[in-house]
Amino acid sequence: MRYCHTGTLAFFVLLLLCLRPLAQSDPLPSWADGPVKRAIIELVNATTDKASPDFVPPGARVATFDQDGTTWVSHPMYTQVVYCLERVPELVKAKPELKAVEPFKTVLSGNRDAIEKLSTKDLLRILAATLSGLTVDEFKAEVANWIATAKHPRWDRLYTELTYQPMLEVMQYLRANGYKTYIVTGGSQDFVRAYSERVYGIGPEQVVGTVAGIKYGYDKTGKPILTREPKLLLNDNNAGKPEGIHMMIGRRPVIAFGNSTGDRQMLEYTKAGNGARLAMLVLHDDAKREYAYGPALGLPGTKVGTFTQALYDEAKKDGWMIISMKNDWKRIFAFEQ
Amino acid sequence: MRYCHTGTLAFFVLLLLCLRPLAQSDPLPSWADGPVKRAIIELVNATTDKASPDFVPPGARVATFDQDGTTWVSHPMYTQVVYCLERVPELVKAKPELKAVEPFKTVLSGNRDAIEKLSTKDLLRILAATLSGLTVDEFKAEVANWIATAKHPRWDRLYTELTYQPMLEVMQYLRANGYKTYIVTGGSQDFVRAYSERVYGIGPEQVVGTVAGIKYGYDKTGKPILTREPKLLLNDNNAGKPEGIHMMIGRRPVIAFGNSTGDRQMLEYTKAGNGARLAMLVLHDDAKREYAYGPALGLPGTKVGTFTQALYDEAKKDGWMIISMKNDWKRIFAFEQ
Repeated sequence: MRYCHTGTLAFFVLLLLCLRPLAQSDPLPSWADGPVKRAIIELVNATTDKASPDFVPPGARVATFDQDGTTWVSHPMYTQVVYCLERVPELVKAKPELKAVEPFKTVLSGNRDAIEKLSTKDLLRILAATLSGLTVDEFKAEVANWIATAKHPRWDRLYTELTYQPMLEVMQYLRANGYKTYIVTGGSQDFVRAYSERVYGIGPEQVVGTVAGIKYGYDKTGKPILTREPKLLLNDNNAGKPEGIHMMIGRRPVIAFGNSTGDRQMLEYTKAGNGARLAMLVLHDDAKREYAYGPALGLPGTKVGTFTQALYDEAKKDGWMIISMKNDWKRIFAFEQ
Repeated sequence: MRYCHTGTLAFFVLLLLCLRPLAQSDPLPSWADGPVKRAIIELVNATTDKASPDFVPPGARVATFDQDGTTWVSHPMYTQVVYCLERVPELVKAKPELKAVEPFKTVLSGNRDAIEKLSTKDLLRILAATLSGLTVDEFKAEVANWIATAKHPRWDRLYTELTYQPMLEVMQYLRANGYKTYIVTGGSQDFVRAYSERVYGIGPEQVVGTVAGIKYGYDKTGKPILTREPKLLLNDNNAGKPEGIHMMIGRRPVIAFGNSTGDRQMLEYTKAGNGARLAMLVLHDDAKREYAYGPALGLPGTKVGTFTQALYDEAKKDGWMIISMKNDWKRIFAFEQ
């Protein structure tokens, strides 16, 4: 027998290569041990084990993530709003008649206080004007260029560096277990698509967002083009989230992550499904490493990402889990050591 | 050495199991050899070979298929229209006031000639009434039930048996080569989703169709529900096809299949992309095995699935390929021997 170690050695090497590793390292190293981390791992085990009563076939393993405040920083302003404000000078160059018209005039003044006081209606007008008019390819290129250099003032780092490391780990962990991961954002679908593959590993077909009217037509040379119109087809906020999920995915999420009242209906809809389901709410309670806001916990209120008392009460009543950034996340950003 | 055959035998067995088969059988056995079959295979080779100038990374390998007349029989009437007409009696039971109202009165009369003469406007009214009102789960169950027994009068076979075997082979072949396959139908998205996974191996998230308004709400017990509204969010026909593809997929198809003027813009949009692209038109020219229609080739016209002279001219000019059912398909249905 001793003459054949080459054969037997090769046999065992191949056997090892063919088998999946039995011992697994911690899939969620940035998460502190605790009920939230345990709940995620238990859900994955329960839905992927064929012998479990909560087994979910691979095709139906759907995980949805809100973006702003859930997978990256959304303070003091949504990144997309920063983009839209910064696009106003270019817009005015193309349409000089807007120069003297509010709210564009205020934006051009550069007066931070006045800009921060703009009403939601004014902001929506700026969004509609700056997010439309281009072809889908032009828009994608422009957002990709902007996001490659735009930085957050507090950290002086790219916005894409301000994604939450624990959430990136959850996405990878879920995908490694046969889940399809989706971004379900109130932000513009095409805005997020411009970087989602690189930043989250999530392709454009798995980004559900607020949808602008898209118009098919032809350019001067007769080439087909798709142009973004200043029209709202789906407002992917509040009730629009489960509605958008049905339209784009056609399956109910098994696990969903949010952080504000805009995610309420998505979390309700997720939790109302049969079998094991998880609805998760990120609580911004870490003023030192990130921000602290949310009237529910006696923290200050904020214009964006509202975590109200009613939302907190519903979470408790309906069995959603609260993710405390302070206690559940050992590390928030990849650049932290 | 002869003492260790168990080890070496096991080694070779494992080696074989670990390697992909080198020899491959014909992936498209129902296709006759010819330019169309060759073009499909060449496209797959060119887009999946890393050394090819036309290589497409797996995530961007998108194939879209119109359904009616492209992947299954749509004559003499679209299957979904048959469903809607057959649902009218039940609808009238719930809303007796419709009994004496046109076009419902005509449908209830059972007079085939009169029903066939209903205008498009009348048909759309019937569609809106019969495709709305239910929750998305109720609708799915109802369509799934209906399609499990409804038969085509000519063949006395289930509609789902009247899918085109060559197209099912193309779908499988493309998927085996890293393509994502999508149905892009003018029909109701949720109608097709009720059977697409079973019939085409295509999950609901890869069905792009005409989208009804979906409304989030709560039932009497407070449970979240999504209800289908008599509202049109996306008409996935003509220009609506590339618009819907952008919304739902966010990538341009590498290969697209259609059969009528409703597919024109999808095919134009596909062909206008960079690199290797294929736009394919199914021509119904086989009166014996299926149907023959299409004024382009001097065949009779038809109310559905219009293959006009203008479409034919554009196909020729723009380099689309025509699939002749008569000549390119050795077998049309799986039940044929």
